[in-house]
Amino acid sequence: MEHDPLLLIFIVFLAGVIGGELSQRLRLPEVVGQVVAGVFLGPTYLGLIKVNETLEVLSEVGAMLLLFLVGLETSIESLRRLGRMPLVVGSIGVAIPFIAGFWWAWSLLALSLPASLFVGAAFVATSAGITAKVLRDIGAIDRDESKVILGAAIVDDVLGMLVLGVVAALQTGGEISVGPLLGGLALSVLFIIVSLWVGAFALRKNPRLLDFPLDPLSPLTVSLLLCLGLSVASAHVGLAAIIGAFIAGVIVAEYPAHKTIVSQVESVGAFLIPFFFVVTGAMVSLGNIGGGKQGFLLVIACILAVISKFVAGFFGARRLGNRSAVIVGVGMVPRGEVGILIATIGRTQNVFGEEVFGILIAMSLVTSLIVPPLLRPLFGGNVLKPSRD
Amino acid sequence: MEHDPLLLIFIVFLAGVIGGELSQRLRLPEVVGQVVAGVFLGPTYLGLIKVNETLEVLSEVGAMLLLFLVGLETSIESLRRLGRMPLVVGSIGVAIPFIAGFWWAWSLLALSLPASLFVGAAFVATSAGITAKVLRDIGAIDRDESKVILGAAIVDDVLGMLVLGVVAALQTGGEISVGPLLGGLALSVLFIIVSLWVGAFALRKNPRLLDFPLDPLSPLTVSLLLCLGLSVASAHVGLAAIIGAFIAGVIVAEYPAHKTIVSQVESVGAFLIPFFFVVTGAMVSLGNIGGGKQGFLLVIACILAVISKFVAGFFGARRLGNRSAVIVGVGMVPRGEVGILIATIGRTQNVFGEEVFGILIAMSLVTSLIVPPLLRPLFGGNVLKPSRD
Repeated sequence: MEHDPLLLIFIVFLAGVIGGELSQRLRLPEVVGQVVAGVFLGPTYLGLIKVNETLEVLSEVGAMLLLFLVGLETSIESLRRLGRMPLVVGSIGVAIPFIAGFWWAWSLLALSLPASLFVGAAFVATSAGITAKVLRDIGAIDRDESKVILGAAIVDDVLGMLVLGVVAALQTGGEISVGPLLGGLALSVLFIIVSLWVGAFALRKNPRLLDFPLDPLSPLTVSLLLCLGLSVASAHVGLAAIIGAFIAGVIVAEYPAHKTIVSQVESVGAFLIPFFFVVTGAMVSLGNIGGGKQGFLLVIACILAVISKFVAGFFGARRLGNRSAVIVGVGMVPRGEVGILIATIGRTQNVFGEEVFGILIAMSLVTSLIVPPLLRPLFGGNVLKPSRD
Repeated sequence: MEHDPLLLIFIVFLAGVIGGELSQRLRLPEVVGQVVAGVFLGPTYLGLIKVNETLEVLSEVGAMLLLFLVGLETSIESLRRLGRMPLVVGSIGVAIPFIAGFWWAWSLLALSLPASLFVGAAFVATSAGITAKVLRDIGAIDRDESKVILGAAIVDDVLGMLVLGVVAALQTGGEISVGPLLGGLALSVLFIIVSLWVGAFALRKNPRLLDFPLDPLSPLTVSLLLCLGLSVASAHVGLAAIIGAFIAGVIVAEYPAHKTIVSQVESVGAFLIPFFFVVTGAMVSLGNIGGGKQGFLLVIACILAVISKFVAGFFGARRLGNRSAVIVGVGMVPRGEVGILIATIGRTQNVFGEEVFGILIAMSLVTSLIVPPLLRPLFGGNVLKPSRD
């Protein structure tokens, strides 16, 4: 099709609105319809969307706004109350899926040791975005389970970065330099802790930091600036950009009038967040799945991916009670755009072929689509319905 | 510098916030500081921003949101009350600057006849965005002068498209096919009238068109969809995308709860509109101005560009009284991104060299920067101060 960036944006946004609407009419969360709409528009079916840099950026900014919103509804106190639970859930949630993915690739696909380790890393990914959007939509974002899921997703990303660093180095047969890896780990942990505490402390001491500019919309613009700035910084220390956006949200949550900012960012997000889900769907390329053996391998991969994350979340969060532990377990399952990204890196670097790539992509998609419909029933009647306010 | 799209976006947004703040502290309109910040970051000085497709898209979407907002504050009745005045102002505002620009290129620069005609077309451009933003900021968007300026800017764009079509055809010595040109003209006029009337009629008959979706933010998302859709359609009939966005705004203004949509779109705009002004500034490349003769030519070009548009606006709007006619005359002066665009087309197609290109760009910049500070004093005490609400 003709290259017209505005038309492309219109198509993606239209797909987001229609997909979201249809899935809500089917009593499914919006994200399901948006991701599916993206898959349909993407290379597998209609081929209407080719994900270029502009769409990638809009998608990433959408994800940032989403996690910024989630952060805005998360107080530091509520995170502190959970203690080490997110750390435990996140750590087990890296270890078990890694072993499961490695076993799948090593014993079922008979891949080489380095390639199998790389596949393990693809199983580790957690997409905070998918779960976070559903938790917001059903009004459950301030529940303890939600905080554990989000905190664990951050731990997951930090450790996942380390795992990916190690397995990527193994591919070229190069030595693993422990120094830089541990340095990167220390830097990222330091970044999270320092930016969070310094930012929250500064804003608590002087809330005028957000509204000193003359522009009447300034608390919003300065907040968005902080969100963009910490996202960029987060990406530069090797973490996902959305972690910086989440931290920015937690900081701005200390601002007395942060409720106004929430509703303003919701408006910005109403425009940009759908790009994240539709583009995530459009990154999926399912061309190579179809045969019986591949279908079998895919089913096993999905089962392993689901069970390994579920078990980690469940046992890590047992202290919250059985039902809550189930919610945490389920909420950790989606691999989303992170799984797609790691699979794409592996394919690009020829770690594995089209077959494994297609299965990993499909696994990321399946895990992302099965979770959203489960969350509302799991929370039961304790959550708010989405309402016009 | 490293190619990092997120970092680029952060820099542009930071420049928009800082530039806007500094110019407001100097009692100048935000846009001045934002455009100047863009010029500084662009190729002439720091070279930090290279305008790529992603920035172009964000800039265009920002301009669309701005004109959408302006349309939201414009009722069809208020446009109708003005009668043919925008048509008159727009038509004279194309004719006189065209002759002035042609004369400048033909007699002072001794360019060829086709090239001189093309330069004339560059003088015709009107940037609705610059003036519209200032009129909104000072609370004067619902004044008759503002409607005339905006209506005339649309007429300007329609006729400017025709003029550009003719002069571009002349460059290659090709024949001018009157049929397609008049067809294009008819199509664009038809598009404006039909979309406006059908849209407004439909929404007036059935306001539920905007809020039938289940998403609680749906009046906003459906409005944004209409804004994007009409912008794309507008560009496809050969008009500026922002004209479609303006029409979408006028249509949505018929929605009973359109005030809510205004404040929501203001939030989206707080994020994206600065991209329009900073990127417009960053498109400026002033490297080739400096010599005495060039400086002289630039001064003459600016004087001609200002006077020709001012005279057209003043005489076309005389019926509103002297002061209002002055406001309309001044408001039509900025060439902004449209002037830069036409100059860039001319340079790319080798219609003229670096020297003329540099002067046209500088003229577009100068006309865009001198107008904003004049508008508030001209409106006197009758306008609102920007306030936190």
